[in-house]
Amino acid sequence: MAVQTVASSTSGSTVDLGPAAALSCRECGHRVPLGPVFACEECFGPLEIAYDFSAYDTEELRKRIEAGPANIWRYAPLLPVPADVAGKPNLNPGWTKLVKADNLARELGVTGGLYVKDDSGNPTHSFKDRVVAQALEAARAFGFTTLSCSSTGNLAGAVGAAAARAGFRSCVFIPHDLEQGKVVMAAIYGGELVGIEGNYDDVNRFCSELIGDPAGEGWGFVNVNLRPYYAEGSKTLAYEVCEQLGWRLPDQIVVPIASGSQLTKIDKGLQELIKLGLVEDKPYKIFGAQAEGCSPVSTAFKAGHDVVRPQKPDTIAKSLAIGNPADGPYVLDIARRTGGAVEDVTDEQVVDAIKLLARTEGIFAETAGGVTVGVTRKLIESGVLDPTKTTVVLNTGDGLKTLDAVAGTGLTATIRPNLESFREAGLA
Amino acid sequence: MAVQTVASSTSGSTVDLGPAAALSCRECGHRVPLGPVFACEECFGPLEIAYDFSAYDTEELRKRIEAGPANIWRYAPLLPVPADVAGKPNLNPGWTKLVKADNLARELGVTGGLYVKDDSGNPTHSFKDRVVAQALEAARAFGFTTLSCSSTGNLAGAVGAAAARAGFRSCVFIPHDLEQGKVVMAAIYGGELVGIEGNYDDVNRFCSELIGDPAGEGWGFVNVNLRPYYAEGSKTLAYEVCEQLGWRLPDQIVVPIASGSQLTKIDKGLQELIKLGLVEDKPYKIFGAQAEGCSPVSTAFKAGHDVVRPQKPDTIAKSLAIGNPADGPYVLDIARRTGGAVEDVTDEQVVDAIKLLARTEGIFAETAGGVTVGVTRKLIESGVLDPTKTTVVLNTGDGLKTLDAVAGTGLTATIRPNLESFREAGLA
Ligand SMILES: Cc1ncc(COP(=O)(O)O)c(C=O)c1O
Ligand SMILES: Cc1ncc(COP(=O)(O)O)c(C=O)c1O
Ligand SMILES: [Zn+2]
Ligand SMILES: [Zn+2]
Repeated sequence: MAVQTVASSTSGSTVDLGPAAALSCRECGHRVPLGPVFACEECFGPLEIAYDFSAYDTEELRKRIEAGPANIWRYAPLLPVPADVAGKPNLNPGWTKLVKADNLARELGVTGGLYVKDDSGNPTHSFKDRVVAQALEAARAFGFTTLSCSSTGNLAGAVGAAAARAGFRSCVFIPHDLEQGKVVMAAIYGGELVGIEGNYDDVNRFCSELIGDPAGEGWGFVNVNLRPYYAEGSKTLAYEVCEQLGWRLPDQIVVPIASGSQLTKIDKGLQELIKLGLVEDKPYKIFGAQAEGCSPVSTAFKAGHDVVRPQKPDTIAKSLAIGNPADGPYVLDIARRTGGAVEDVTDEQVVDAIKLLARTEGIFAETAGGVTVGVTRKLIESGVLDPTKTTVVLNTGDGLKTLDAVAGTGLTATIRPNLESFREAGLA
Repeated sequence: MAVQTVASSTSGSTVDLGPAAALSCRECGHRVPLGPVFACEECFGPLEIAYDFSAYDTEELRKRIEAGPANIWRYAPLLPVPADVAGKPNLNPGWTKLVKADNLARELGVTGGLYVKDDSGNPTHSFKDRVVAQALEAARAFGFTTLSCSSTGNLAGAVGAAAARAGFRSCVFIPHDLEQGKVVMAAIYGGELVGIEGNYDDVNRFCSELIGDPAGEGWGFVNVNLRPYYAEGSKTLAYEVCEQLGWRLPDQIVVPIASGSQLTKIDKGLQELIKLGLVEDKPYKIFGAQAEGCSPVSTAFKAGHDVVRPQKPDTIAKSLAIGNPADGPYVLDIARRTGGAVEDVTDEQVVDAIKLLARTEGIFAETAGGVTVGVTRKLIESGVLDPTKTTVVLNTGDGLKTLDAVAGTGLTATIRPNLESFREAGLA
C-alpha cells in the first residue's frame, strides 16, 4: 500500500485495532479514519489515537487487566491493537520491575518512597520494545511488509528484533557513530542497518524524505508514518507503574526526553486511568530529564518559552540526542500544567548517577537512566522535587549498550593465582 | 564466622532456610546440619540440600505457587530460603519468558513444539541471578558480610549486583581476559573485581585456597562454600519451564554445561515436580551442550567414560570455559539415565547459531545460547534429538555481553542523508 503523509477519508476504515476509533489532530481536533498517516490534513498538526472506552465497567476492566498476561498485553483493552494480539508473534515486552529503591532513597534523602521503573528488563533491554509492539500491530493491519525507523540506537534493536520474530523485512537508519552495543544489537537480527553520515536529526529528516519517495513504498516507519500507534506504547509505562503501586498514582515521576513522545504519552496514560476510575483523581507532577549537551526542552522550560529552539547535540547520552524534538512543546505544556519541571545534567553527572544507581540498587542503567537519576538528584537538591512524596524514576535502557560511557570502570586489581600475590595487592 | 570446608556437627542447626532440612552427601548420603560447608566429612563428596516436603498437599502447593510473585520466589516452598524471602532486598530474578519458537522450529525441522527459555531477561541478563539469589539467603543466614565468587563472567555481575542491593561487600575473581561487557558489568556495582592471570580453573583453585586462609574469613563464596545453596537456584529453570508449559514436562531439554551444576539441578527440579505430583511421571531426556574448545564432558560421554578428563579451554564461549567441571560425572549419569546425550559444536557453529536465533526469533543470545542452539541443530541432524517431541532449549545469557563473538556484524551500508546516496548504495 502507498504511504501517505496526510489522511485521506477512505483508507483504513475497516481496520481492527481494538478500542482505537480514529485519528484525531492534537492541534485542531480534526478526526480521520485509522490509517498510516501522522499529520493533519487541515493544519499539519500531529495525529493521535482517539479511543472508544465507553463500554468499560471500571471493576470489570481492573479484573480483566489483573488476570491478563505478565506483559503489556494485559492492557490490550486500552491500546490500538486487536483483541487477540497476545497470540500473534511479537516480543511480549513490558511488565518490567518497579524496584523499591530504599538504598538510593537513603542517599538522596527521599522519605516518601522512591521507585525505579526498570525497563532494561525488556526483550531488547529498552522501553522501545513497548512502542515497537504497537507499531507492529498497525503495520500488520495496514498491510506493510517492511518495518523501518530512524533511531538513536535503542529503537533500531527493538525494530530489528520485532521484525525478525514477526516475519517482517526490516531496514533501520541510525547515525553512523553509535555505541558498538547498539550497532551490533541492531544488526544481529539480520535486517538492513544503514548508517547515516550525520546526527539523529539528519537521519530523521532523511526518513521523512524517503516516505514521500517510491523507494519507501510499503514501508512502515514506526516513528514516522506509524507514529500515532507507536507512541501509545509508552502509556503502558504509566499503567504498569500505577498498577504496581497498587492502583495508585505516583506523586512525582521523572521521565527522560529525546523527542518527548514518551513523556507526553505517560501523561496521557495517567489521565486515562483517572478517567476510567482505575486510580483516584489526584494531582501528580511530571518531570522531564535531558543531558546538558542536548537540552532544547529544558532550556525552553527554564526560559519560560513555549517554542523549543533546536540544538546541535553533543553528549554521551546518545539515545536522548535529538536536537529538534517533535513533541517538545507538548512536554513544556505538561511539565507546566502538572507543576513539574524540565532539568538537565552534565555528562559527568550522568556517569556519576549511573554508578550511584548501580552501587545502591544493583541496576546497571544506560546513559538515559543516568540522566533521569542525575536529574532526580539535582531536583531534590534544588528543592523542586519533594522528597516526602512518592517518586518514580524511569530507567529506560541498559548499561550494557553504553559501555563507553563508563569505560574507566573495570578491574580493581590484577593478581597471579596465589595468596602471596593477593596479599601483595593489598587485598587481604 | 569462620569458614569451614567440611561440616561440623554444631554449626547452623537453628538456621531458618525454609524447607531445607540438612546437607546430605551426594556420594555416601551422610547428613550434616545446614551450614557454610560443601564437602562431606566422611568421603569428601559434594554436599547438597535435603528437603522436608512432607507437609505439602499437591493442589494446595500448586495454587500457592500460581498465586505467588512473577519471579523465582513463587517457588520459595521448594527452595532453601526463609518463607519471607520475597520481602528482603534482592534482585527478584526469574519467571523469564518461555518463547514458542515457531520460526526456529521451521528452520530446524522440529514439529513437536520448540521453545526457548530466555534467561537473558534476568536482572543482570543471565541465569546466574537465580543461583546468586539462593546463595545470598544462605549468606544472610550464616552471618557473612562479604559475597565472593570465582566466575567466567556472568556470575561476577550477578554477585556484584546482588551484593549492592542487599548491602553486602563483594569481592569477585575472574580470569583477567574476559569480554569488556562482562568486566564493566561486574565492576559497575562498586565492589572489588580482581583479575587473575590464568584461566577459570586457576581462578577457582585460588578461591579454594583463599577459603582456607584467614584472609577469606567471613566471606561467602557463592559457588564454593555456599555452593550447595547456590546450586539449587537452577531448579527454578525446571520449575518455570514445566509451569509455563501448563504443568507439563518437556520431552527433551538442551542445557549448557560449564561446571555442570545447572544441568544436574534441572534434573533434580524435574524429579521433585514428579514426586510432588505437580507434573505427570513420564520420561524426559536431558541433553548437555558444550563448545568443542572446552568439551571435557562431551568427550567423556562420547568415549563412554565415567570420569571426565580436564581440558585446557580455548573457545569463544568463555562463560562455559571450565576445563575441570566439578559436576561432570553427574552430568554423564543424568544424560545416560534419561536417554539424552552430551554434544559439542565449533566456535563457528556457535556464531551461526547466535545469528540463527536472532534472525528467527529476535533473541540475541550470548555464546552459551549459541552453544545450546548449535548443539540442538547438530543433534537433530544426527537423529539423536527427536524433532517430533516437545523440546526446550535454554538461552542462559545475553548477546550484549559477548559482542566480540559477532564482531563482524554491523552496518550493512553507510550513506549520506539523501535519496541519491540511498540509491547509489543500491538500497532502493
Ligand atoms: C533509552 C531511551 N530512553 C528514552 C528515550 C526517549 O524517547 P522519546 O523520543 O519518546 O522522548 C529514548 C529514545 O530513543 C531512549 O532510547
Ligand atoms: C551463560 C551461562 N550459561 C551456563 C553456564 C553453566 O553453568 P554451570 O557451571 O552450572 O554448568 C554458565 C556458567 O558460568 C553461564 O555463564
Ligand atoms: Zn489539525
Ligand atoms: Zn560422603
